[in-house]
Amino acid sequence: AIYVITPTYARLVQKAELSRLSHTFLHVPRLHWLVVEDAAQPTPLVTDFLAASGLTYTHLHKLTPKDKKLQENDPSWLKPRGAEQRNEGLRWLREMGAAAEGKEATALEEAVVYFADDDNTYSLQLFEEMRYTHRVSVWPVGLVGGMKFESPVVQDGRVVRFHTGWRPNRPFPMDMAGFAVSLRLILSNPEACFDGDAQMGFLESSFLQHLVTMDDLEPKADLCTKVLVWHTRTEKPKMKREDALQRQGLGSDPDVEV
Amino acid sequence: AIYVITPTYARLVQKAELSRLSHTFLHVPRLHWLVVEDAAQPTPLVTDFLAASGLTYTHLHKLTPKDKKLQENDPSWLKPRGAEQRNEGLRWLREMGAAAEGKEATALEEAVVYFADDDNTYSLQLFEEMRYTHRVSVWPVGLVGGMKFESPVVQDGRVVRFHTGWRPNRPFPMDMAGFAVSLRLILSNPEACFDGDAQMGFLESSFLQHLVTMDDLEPKADLCTKVLVWHTRTEKPKMKREDALQRQGLGSDPDVEV
Ligand SMILES: O=c1ccn([C@@H]2O[C@H](COP(=O)(O)OP(=O)(O)O)[C@@H](O)[C@H]2O)c(=O)[nH]1
Ligand SMILES: O=c1ccn([C@@H]2O[C@H](COP(=O)(O)OP(=O)(O)O)[C@@H](O)[C@H]2O)c(=O)[nH]1
Ligand SMILES: [Mn+2]
Ligand SMILES: [Mn+2]
Repeated sequence: AIYVITPTYARLVQKAELSRLSHTFLHVPRLHWLVVEDAAQPTPLVTDFLAASGLTYTHLHKLTPKDKKLQENDPSWLKPRGAEQRNEGLRWLREMGAAAEGKEATALEEAVVYFADDDNTYSLQLFEEMRYTHRVSVWPVGLVGGMKFESPVVQDGRVVRFHTGWRPNRPFPMDMAGFAVSLRLILSNPEACFDGDAQMGFLESSFLQHLVTMDDLEPKADLCTKVLVWHTRTEKPKMKREDALQRQGLGSDPDVEV
Repeated sequence: AIYVITPTYARLVQKAELSRLSHTFLHVPRLHWLVVEDAAQPTPLVTDFLAASGLTYTHLHKLTPKDKKLQENDPSWLKPRGAEQRNEGLRWLREMGAAAEGKEATALEEAVVYFADDDNTYSLQLFEEMRYTHRVSVWPVGLVGGMKFESPVVQDGRVVRFHTGWRPNRPFPMDMAGFAVSLRLILSNPEACFDGDAQMGFLESSFLQHLVTMDDLEPKADLCTKVLVWHTRTEKPKMKREDALQRQGLGSDPDVEV
């Protein structure tokens, strides 16, 4: 199975993002979606959406504490987004792993964990690439870090360095979308998690450093020569007319879910 | 069948957009995708993408003439986007309609045409709503026109006006994503097409005026109370680091398709 951990938070485009993402995941066999809301309680929107999605899922929630949350006027690099939620997904996996017995426990030996943000774009091929991951598999990510793509560089079948526009000497200069980890490795390294206080660009490293070295990385996607995932971002919709109409009491019906 | 006409043009996010869109369409029974490239020739990227997509499709192309094309520094409302391509789709449908005979011609009687931009987000339910369209069916569109949603307003089962933030008295103040038309109606009104010179906000009207009046509109999506499609837009990716590296000859491999 592939366990996909997706942090998500309430905003105007949330249901749209989750909808198209679910259409992708519905094509992937044996995918278990761990949706972790950045919220104090599960919201009705996400609850109803998941129930109708047709996917196998677990609905979790974990509010980012106020002091770790990016504020409206903070620069976007100040604090990582989604760290607490990914850790909550890891916690759930470890709890499940500890409880599993017999056949169930054997099945988990083959399982893979992937961190999929709700706004990225994923090809279907990507999931077949990651399905057989011994420890940590890696591949290029399109449209990330101010680059056409970032990627591990492979020589003689091994990752020897990274193609990136910024600080190539970080331990793992890769985006979250660029790797998958075997569940076995996660269960056998219970201390591995994301450091929400990590410096910009070091969040992925804070997790992977507990698990592997560069030598261990398993290059996928034709030895890292194919872009199978894109770090797309969705524009924040303008609400200029909505705000003007609301001031006249003529805004869009708040009972209609968007 | 549902004929979906999608204008598309080359840019960094094109393959990502087409990928997630195709994942949605793959869930829709009897969908025929008319992809119309804004290009002088079919591009290898779209050609290869469609061949691998698993969808039933027709690949067309129609370059927007230079004088009708929005230029880099034009304000976005100056000229409509995708009009020439949608007309090319209509031209293809009429050619096919004229050639169809017997059983094939009978099947076309039931067909529906929908204009789906490549960057919007579509629920699966939407396609079931439009599948039975007598003349023109309509529904709300989320996140469009500076509003949470725009929508036809229904009273006693009929559309009586429109909820919109701007010029509600336009003939059809609706986004392209908010209606579907029976193929029969399109074939029997050969003059109906999109006016690429229409004023901002009048492109949809320029087409629909040939086909129906407000009275004829068939409200779908629970009498226009559900948002089943979202006018999402994707951020243009920044290429700051890519440009800097390219100046040093260290840019991303141009042979890798993104
Ligand atoms: O306050 C927030 C902001 C973001 N996210 C989630 O964290 C992930 C990464 O956020 P985002 O896509 O905004 O980051 P970026 O595109 O800048 O890498 C996404 O799945 C978001 O839904 C979250 O849970 N809480
Ligand atoms: O030069 C262009 C710009 C846009 N489009 C297509 O026309 C449609 C509408 O364009 P866009 O989504 O940019 O418009 P908006 O989001 O502003 O309504 C989309 O399917 C685009 O791919 C096109 O064919 N040529
Ligand atoms: Mn993102
Ligand atoms: Mn658009």
